[in-house]
Amino acid sequence: MAKVLTNREENYSQWYNDLVTKAGLAENSAVRGCMIIKPYGYAIWEKIQSVLDRMFKETGHQNAYFPIFIPKSFFNKEASHVEGFAKECAVITHYRLKNDPKTNTIVVDEDAKLEEELIVRPTSETIIWDSYRKWIQSYRDLPILINQWANVVRWEMRPRLFLRTTEFLWQEGHTAHATMEEAMEEARKMLDVYADFAENYLALPVLRGVKSENERFAGAVETFCVEALMQDGKSLQAGTSHFLGQNFAKAFDVQFLNKDNNLEYVWATSWGVSTRLIGAMIMAHSDNNGLIIPPKLAPVQVVIIPVYKGKEDQNKVDKFISPVIEKLKNTGISVKYDNDDSKKPGWKFAEHELKGVPVRITVGSRDVENNSLEVFRRDTLQKEIISADGVVEHVKNLIEDIHKSIFNKALQFRKDNTFKIDSWDEFKEVTENKGGFILAHWDGTAETEEEIKEKTKATIRTIPIDGKFENGKCIYSGKFSKQRVVFARAY
Amino acid sequence: MAKVLTNREENYSQWYNDLVTKAGLAENSAVRGCMIIKPYGYAIWEKIQSVLDRMFKETGHQNAYFPIFIPKSFFNKEASHVEGFAKECAVITHYRLKNDPKTNTIVVDEDAKLEEELIVRPTSETIIWDSYRKWIQSYRDLPILINQWANVVRWEMRPRLFLRTTEFLWQEGHTAHATMEEAMEEARKMLDVYADFAENYLALPVLRGVKSENERFAGAVETFCVEALMQDGKSLQAGTSHFLGQNFAKAFDVQFLNKDNNLEYVWATSWGVSTRLIGAMIMAHSDNNGLIIPPKLAPVQVVIIPVYKGKEDQNKVDKFISPVIEKLKNTGISVKYDNDDSKKPGWKFAEHELKGVPVRITVGSRDVENNSLEVFRRDTLQKEIISADGVVEHVKNLIEDIHKSIFNKALQFRKDNTFKIDSWDEFKEVTENKGGFILAHWDGTAETEEEIKEKTKATIRTIPIDGKFENGKCIYSGKFSKQRVVFARAY
Repeated sequence: MAKVLTNREENYSQWYNDLVTKAGLAENSAVRGCMIIKPYGYAIWEKIQSVLDRMFKETGHQNAYFPIFIPKSFFNKEASHVEGFAKECAVITHYRLKNDPKTNTIVVDEDAKLEEELIVRPTSETIIWDSYRKWIQSYRDLPILINQWANVVRWEMRPRLFLRTTEFLWQEGHTAHATMEEAMEEARKMLDVYADFAENYLALPVLRGVKSENERFAGAVETFCVEALMQDGKSLQAGTSHFLGQNFAKAFDVQFLNKDNNLEYVWATSWGVSTRLIGAMIMAHSDNNGLIIPPKLAPVQVVIIPVYKGKEDQNKVDKFISPVIEKLKNTGISVKYDNDDSKKPGWKFAEHELKGVPVRITVGSRDVENNSLEVFRRDTLQKEIISADGVVEHVKNLIEDIHKSIFNKALQFRKDNTFKIDSWDEFKEVTENKGGFILAHWDGTAETEEEIKEKTKATIRTIPIDGKFENGKCIYSGKFSKQRVVFARAY
Repeated sequence: MAKVLTNREENYSQWYNDLVTKAGLAENSAVRGCMIIKPYGYAIWEKIQSVLDRMFKETGHQNAYFPIFIPKSFFNKEASHVEGFAKECAVITHYRLKNDPKTNTIVVDEDAKLEEELIVRPTSETIIWDSYRKWIQSYRDLPILINQWANVVRWEMRPRLFLRTTEFLWQEGHTAHATMEEAMEEARKMLDVYADFAENYLALPVLRGVKSENERFAGAVETFCVEALMQDGKSLQAGTSHFLGQNFAKAFDVQFLNKDNNLEYVWATSWGVSTRLIGAMIMAHSDNNGLIIPPKLAPVQVVIIPVYKGKEDQNKVDKFISPVIEKLKNTGISVKYDNDDSKKPGWKFAEHELKGVPVRITVGSRDVENNSLEVFRRDTLQKEIISADGVVEHVKNLIEDIHKSIFNKALQFRKDNTFKIDSWDEFKEVTENKGGFILAHWDGTAETEEEIKEKTKATIRTIPIDGKFENGKCIYSGKFSKQRVVFARAY
């Protein structure tokens, strides 16, 4: 198979697009901005869902489902929320089409105009807090710990597969608490769940921190985030968890009787990750041969390819490999035996490399004689011959090792591309030509952040939670600063 | 706890509504016709999804995801499809809101009008077949066996929780085949999957058959269905599987090169079930004390309620019951230990009866002394005392037995309410006063079916697949008929 991908170093953006479409993850649809998630891409999303869903349940959450439509007036209730979301909404104005006899086409039925327009949810705080008002009377009804798996719509003018699509799939947690402390603890806890998931499943090292006011979620008091560095030196937000204070409770009048029998507004959090994580995974690890999928999220962890000449040879190989496949499957490893006769081994090698299958095992008649197998790991492209007897142990270790290895590679890349910078000229030079995370002092004002963004396209990605305090001068204004923050250009 | 439900015999419809809301399954939202599926209701949907998803994968299907929006023009392409769906669609006309400085409210931004309106999918044949055109060139690309879990919207003027809602959750399978035979076989296979699921998980006996032309899916050549009888004598369609012929391939120009190198249109099926199944489950089994949930789909299969006086007593009971809980959990049974101190045992009994938990175990200090447990089964309301030693075996058998028992009860009910009728007067009398399935002769014309519907509100629910041929006269027109069909009023 000829190289099908654009070179990463030549055109990173085209390389990414090629990867997504040619590996069969997703493609554009007839509706601008909306993608089709193809079976191989969706299988990765199912893995992500299954791990996160378990994590959410282990931390006490339950799933529920709220309507996709939100009455327009709900967006008026929380002032900053409407600013953040109203500009990019799909608006339902009618509920019927009819046949137009003149043109013999279907047209909108003007008699079926809605009294109040409905918005396709861009996020569900408003419709959910409208319900929580009915569910919460006393402290005994708290906490409410709910998560929702859903599709949401935010109109995108410059869509990119997985990274920025008009419709995307996500989960959104929405919790209600009796005290500020408990809500804050919840927001922090879910940040840690996201960081755990990013590092231990996506093999993606992340910075934990809070957003500056400019980058905060519309309606939040504090936005926690995990932030990862991509191979082109741009940052990608891989999850956010918001402490919403009493903003939505006040907007939707959700009060409860506390233990002292006083009425009080309820405290809130919300938190979410989306199909964007698949984009992050692709951009952080893959190479010019194709995807590199972290093994714990790979739909196929091991592909086995038989090499033979003639029927007799084939039978011998089949007979030898069957118990190996069985043994691997029995330990919970997902195995595909690619014995499709219509494709040559060389084609299959390239195909599974493109698709990022972590481990490839090749087996031919010489292996049958030697009781051996050829094992190839996708991340380093290294081959080795092993004894067939130890295959299960070997593959199990290899899967662990590949995970660690791609995590460490990404971590090393981040280290190599994180710069402490104290001069404005150097700041401009690095953002323009090098990329990466810049640790720099900032005077804490939205104005300065805005001006830096205008001049360099870099924004504050995060204010590290565990960052050390250190007196300094703002990289731009020269004013006093007590902590370095992380600047980068971002997806 | 006082009786909270309306009596089933007094007002079946109110009894159903009470059940859904008071057991915490679902409730109406601020958006007319859209429901909120609450955690307990959603947990049942998760069980349904998990079983069906496994069945779909075992029959070779993969999941994918297609856009929620469909360009209006797509509905023009398949003539009968537009007739069936265009009348009940949510229409997106704009993609932005803006602030109106005069009224200080948000209004639709008229500058953001879409050139072509988008429809929120009522079903996805059109957008999927538009993609299949790009995916299919030759017979080697076939079959495509895809399923999608999604939300869909069909505008409802008279919504009812779970049974008929403007937005609902469902799965929709969409397959593409090289031959008519293979597509037909697929449609039949998925009907059997639905019947298997209905009988072995929902404990719902179903009739398998095909729909008459009037009741067929808009765009289908043949609609297979499973049909179940509810306790009020009305029928509920619990799943449909459509053989679509080449209708959508022709509408979207999807041709393939067959083995003889000739261009041919692709053959199609689609099939789906929805959150409506939860409505069916409730209406088929429940009673005046509350829900009766079939044990294989119950979020909590066993609830354990301790009864004690004072702290010492409580500790004794706790210590005795802990290993029992462990043992039950270890065999995969979902157990809830309801040791909430703020509620009395009597309240808990009523609550878990209302919620339909299949098995309740009560344990007090006398049980500790006797090494016994009191086991109560929700379906028959019977109690017995068992030895604590055999609890796992006992509960496992009980779960099997409850499933069989509620299935058999529903089957007996269906037998008792299925009538062979050959006189029009009797037909009218039974549909009006008794309900149930009526086996009657029909002359095979849409006109007769339409007239019968007008006069009795009964429609042909299904033409049984395994029904015997038997010459007779149409119940209404007196014309020749070769097979009895099943009439009923329906949800």
